[in-house]
Amino acid sequence: MPTWIACKRDGGELDDGALRTIVDGASRGVIPDYQISALLMAIVWRGLSPRELATWLDAMVASGDRLRLDRIPGIKVDKHSTGGVGDKISLCLAPLVAACDVPVPMMSGRSLGHTGGTLDKLESIPGFRTALEPREFERVLAKAGLVLAGQSARLAPADRLLYALRDATATVESIPLIASSILAKKIAEGADALVMDVKVGCGAFLPERGRARALARTIVDLGGRAGLRVIALLTAMDQPIGRAVGNACELREAIEVLRGDGPADTRALTVRLGAEMLVLGGRVPDRRNGATLIEAAIASGAGLERLRKCVALQGGDLRVIDDPSRLPQAPRVKIIRARTSGWLARLDAGLLGRGTTILGAGRLRKEDLVNPGVGIELDRKVGDRVERGDPLATVRFADDARWSAARPLLEPAFVVGPKRVPVHPTSLVLETIS
Amino acid sequence: MPTWIACKRDGGELDDGALRTIVDGASRGVIPDYQISALLMAIVWRGLSPRELATWLDAMVASGDRLRLDRIPGIKVDKHSTGGVGDKISLCLAPLVAACDVPVPMMSGRSLGHTGGTLDKLESIPGFRTALEPREFERVLAKAGLVLAGQSARLAPADRLLYALRDATATVESIPLIASSILAKKIAEGADALVMDVKVGCGAFLPERGRARALARTIVDLGGRAGLRVIALLTAMDQPIGRAVGNACELREAIEVLRGDGPADTRALTVRLGAEMLVLGGRVPDRRNGATLIEAAIASGAGLERLRKCVALQGGDLRVIDDPSRLPQAPRVKIIRARTSGWLARLDAGLLGRGTTILGAGRLRKEDLVNPGVGIELDRKVGDRVERGDPLATVRFADDARWSAARPLLEPAFVVGPKRVPVHPTSLVLETIS
Repeated sequence: MPTWIACKRDGGELDDGALRTIVDGASRGVIPDYQISALLMAIVWRGLSPRELATWLDAMVASGDRLRLDRIPGIKVDKHSTGGVGDKISLCLAPLVAACDVPVPMMSGRSLGHTGGTLDKLESIPGFRTALEPREFERVLAKAGLVLAGQSARLAPADRLLYALRDATATVESIPLIASSILAKKIAEGADALVMDVKVGCGAFLPERGRARALARTIVDLGGRAGLRVIALLTAMDQPIGRAVGNACELREAIEVLRGDGPADTRALTVRLGAEMLVLGGRVPDRRNGATLIEAAIASGAGLERLRKCVALQGGDLRVIDDPSRLPQAPRVKIIRARTSGWLARLDAGLLGRGTTILGAGRLRKEDLVNPGVGIELDRKVGDRVERGDPLATVRFADDARWSAARPLLEPAFVVGPKRVPVHPTSLVLETIS
Repeated sequence: MPTWIACKRDGGELDDGALRTIVDGASRGVIPDYQISALLMAIVWRGLSPRELATWLDAMVASGDRLRLDRIPGIKVDKHSTGGVGDKISLCLAPLVAACDVPVPMMSGRSLGHTGGTLDKLESIPGFRTALEPREFERVLAKAGLVLAGQSARLAPADRLLYALRDATATVESIPLIASSILAKKIAEGADALVMDVKVGCGAFLPERGRARALARTIVDLGGRAGLRVIALLTAMDQPIGRAVGNACELREAIEVLRGDGPADTRALTVRLGAEMLVLGGRVPDRRNGATLIEAAIASGAGLERLRKCVALQGGDLRVIDDPSRLPQAPRVKIIRARTSGWLARLDAGLLGRGTTILGAGRLRKEDLVNPGVGIELDRKVGDRVERGDPLATVRFADDARWSAARPLLEPAFVVGPKRVPVHPTSLVLETIS
């Protein structure tokens, strides 16, 4: 192992046998963590060549089970986001794509850092089970056309172990390691194609556009080598998506979109990603046709019906879907108001993400409990006119200590300026990479 | 800790508090190895600034005891080599410098990689104890003017732990980490000044001259910041020093030098390093005067007498000093002969070092036992005329299996060419850095 670490340290390439031994040894615990972490830092430094990365990914997939979804007809398409603030897109997207007859096997994660997690949002629904055995995963997918589950411990266990080590050793920020971590789970869950939403901007995991583009390119190429068709979109994550940041309130917004309502940007990004998924799923020839179908699935209520079906099959209480006002809401409320008149020039997604995490919407440590009812609802977005004293946002929280801790992050997130600033296109898409 | 690792990963500087917490935490085992090793790899990548390195060194020294040798008059001067093949210089150097009234507190290491260790060479003397308590270390130094001991576990324990981790994680090859590892032990042992012999060439730990020079520069500057006066010499390590490579045979050669005999290069390097030590020790104004004193200590037998005193105080059998033919010798002998006539063009110290390690002169793994009686004695050195069939070297070994394993390394170490090649100056010194 020291020889292999030295090889990577010196910028060399590891052969396939070494890479498989390392990933396998890490996942079975036979290579000490301290050697793995030194190698991971050398990889952050030197990278992995396309050939090395393909082998690394293959070894991660081979470390566990791989779902076979062959009994379900059609091209299975998943969507993954690098994580954004207020990013509830999966919740409305998956049912809409399913309603257009493209199966969506979706395994999601929990909140991480300052961004929320789809699983936490889903668990705002009383009774909803996200830990599904492979057989149940397949059954829900077959019946509802979509399934919204957590990652099984049996899929790509090497990724889980390596991720925990990377998290503790500042070796998360490596494009090849991020790319292989995402794709290992998608390949193991049985997806045939993937739409990748790579966030860019102050609320993103990789704020800088060049790095985000490099990640997108790596994921598209690596996925292709591994037989997974991938299209990646770079999308804006300077301000939160839509109006809600939190768990229950984001689910509420997603239901609004499925009802033909909801903020324009949430809806537009949903339609755009959905259209891409329908193209990858072979359902439509191009994304214009795809967008038409998704719009139709909103208008007809077919998307909402698919969400109801999925929630029912996964044990969730349908009453909160039919009447979202029944979703949990934290008892205390503060209004953030404009101190001057002008235009909202900035709505810092990073600060809002960190602030709502402190309120309890996310986890500061892995063992923290999430409170589904806390969060923030935005009354204004960047480019909107505001008058002094206008409400900018409504904050919901459970105890004063957390509000006191979050306030220094939340209030400065709102910047009112004297001039109207240009805003991103409503769909938030900056670039497409395929 | 992940924040600190990330800081170094991104090329930032760590503040003193962080550095002290890290070194202290590593030495007390409260920071997990996997975080330390990731940081070490980031340091290999990004380096340490002079300020960071000074703090790192200070924290390493502070992790254990520090000997106070104030009761012994004079400037205490040590010598350290980065490790060479056939490098027995310490064995004759320390007694000669002591004979010139400059005290030499010397703590040495064991064989490492393909190079021998002074401790292993000393332990060819039956009864000789190298594990000395601080009080005994001081007592031997006071009485003999020199002491030849192993590193105490109580001095700079952080270095021992970090070194073991570096060895297992390919993070040894970092100039700041090497420099601080060497100096931490020298400062803790109570030396006031140090002559540093940095080897260059195919038998050296850092073969490339630029890297060796950078290490020398770092050690000189870092030592100066920490109050240790250092002069560094870059010396040639393409072929072994002198004629003997092994443990007992190297000690025998060192005794020959003390008797006014021995190979010219071993003697010249001893005189040169000794002269530098006498300058640092304030005994002479310049190294010309120093060389004269060292030569006189050889001629008078005063150096040999100091070695006898030290060996006696440390429990060694004086009979092997007085009659080196009593030193251990392995029973089996092979002669390596020239296959063509010409001039010896190359005598690869790296291959000879690895070959004699396999014979049992060094350790392939930490738990291996060293055989003091195995080794190689060179009949020719680079630049010497050879006729076909001439003996080039005599190999002593204990069992045929090891000879068979070592032979493919030893034989190709000798290259006979058609022309005489230029050789390094006899003293082997290429450059002086102070």
